[in-house]
Amino acid sequence: MAKQNIYDNETFFTEYRKLREREVNANNLFELPTLFSLLPTLEGRKILDLGCGSGERCMDYINKGAAKVTGVDISEKMLAAARSENSDPRITYLNMAMEDIGSLDESYDLVISSLAFHYVEDFGGVVENVYRLLDDGGIFIFSQEHPLATCYSGKGDRWTRDENGVKLHVNIENYCVERRTDSTWFVEGVQRYHRTFSTIVNTLADAGFRILKMVEPVPTEELLEKYPEYYDLFHKPDFLFVKAVKG
Amino acid sequence: MAKQNIYDNETFFTEYRKLREREVNANNLFELPTLFSLLPTLEGRKILDLGCGSGERCMDYINKGAAKVTGVDISEKMLAAARSENSDPRITYLNMAMEDIGSLDESYDLVISSLAFHYVEDFGGVVENVYRLLDDGGIFIFSQEHPLATCYSGKGDRWTRDENGVKLHVNIENYCVERRTDSTWFVEGVQRYHRTFSTIVNTLADAGFRILKMVEPVPTEELLEKYPEYYDLFHKPDFLFVKAVKG
Repeated sequence: MAKQNIYDNETFFTEYRKLREREVNANNLFELPTLFSLLPTLEGRKILDLGCGSGERCMDYINKGAAKVTGVDISEKMLAAARSENSDPRITYLNMAMEDIGSLDESYDLVISSLAFHYVEDFGGVVENVYRLLDDGGIFIFSQEHPLATCYSGKGDRWTRDENGVKLHVNIENYCVERRTDSTWFVEGVQRYHRTFSTIVNTLADAGFRILKMVEPVPTEELLEKYPEYYDLFHKPDFLFVKAVKG
Repeated sequence: MAKQNIYDNETFFTEYRKLREREVNANNLFELPTLFSLLPTLEGRKILDLGCGSGERCMDYINKGAAKVTGVDISEKMLAAARSENSDPRITYLNMAMEDIGSLDESYDLVISSLAFHYVEDFGGVVENVYRLLDDGGIFIFSQEHPLATCYSGKGDRWTRDENGVKLHVNIENYCVERRTDSTWFVEGVQRYHRTFSTIVNTLADAGFRILKMVEPVPTEELLEKYPEYYDLFHKPDFLFVKAVKG
């Protein structure tokens, strides 16, 4: 199956880095706090980070006490940034597609992946490998674009608005048709793989995982007051988190 | 918390019975086959059916070999129909709200509920009681209206259509706002409780269940050819199924 490496596209890389450097973005406001809220104690743990990008999370995990972090990413550009910006003797960066982690021969207490799996065609294969790489009782935490987001294929208006431009509802098309949805995000042809909720749950269950928690992050009242535009997330969450345990 | 008994409304009862008697309906085409596909072997099993209505499923379970079936429903009218149409010495019908099953003192191999939980405010309480009533290794299977359906609150157009009236997409509003959505279905004021996917999953996980499978039923190609109007389900599934195990 295809392995996408859009982050090595020069334009995508530059624009993506700019986006993530903005102080106020959905990642900082919603994705990151949710990810951190799901983490167990990291003290002394061996962690595998799938789709580690420029390594900010790897460094966070070290700062939270992890003994060893392995960061895997398909993009050489992102890993070059990781090695220069988030280097530590306890972190190993590997230039590898997530689909190829079957070749790793270590085991981990914790496998984490932030916003990467919607780029992966062979989700089932990755999940099976994660299960194998985890120790018994090991924890698997990942975020991905929400299924109500990945099903958008760019056709028609995504939102219906009232006469003042306020979003009334989101238009959902073919939620149950699992497929690659190509879209333009900085560059043309960014490929996402849309999977339903039930497929995500069943893929985990079939691999042997017990699901502990799922989160669809929305703004707190406090955040909403500051950034009312994020009310959108109540109509269509951007992210889906899963926390599961091996065994 | 409120316990709804809409099925004892004379108009609702009559119209609902007519709907279910129609040979072609979403229940017969999608809900029932999915429910049956999720059942384990029933031979010799003790089964609790929550929201059993007029008892068709209770009788189905007996015909599939169940040793004993207890059917629980809040509606006296539905149970009167059950007792006259689906009576068997191995079936016991109890006129009881699902919220009150904590008072039962038997244990079961299998708890099943078909299209009832979206009427229940205290979903968490019901799930905890189901867990307690199940034997270790016992199976819990339920269907409910899909979260993309329960979030509809009757405001605005539900569907966007092209110039030929073909449905292009469904309009989803406040999916992440959990709430009671009152609507008119045969009668005014039918109360559904909208819960997100993550709440449904977390309620089960928190009670101690391991989720084995979720299904969002869509038509097969064969069915679609016969009933093209059910393409709707690819945009917005009507039903969500969960199969989980205690332990």
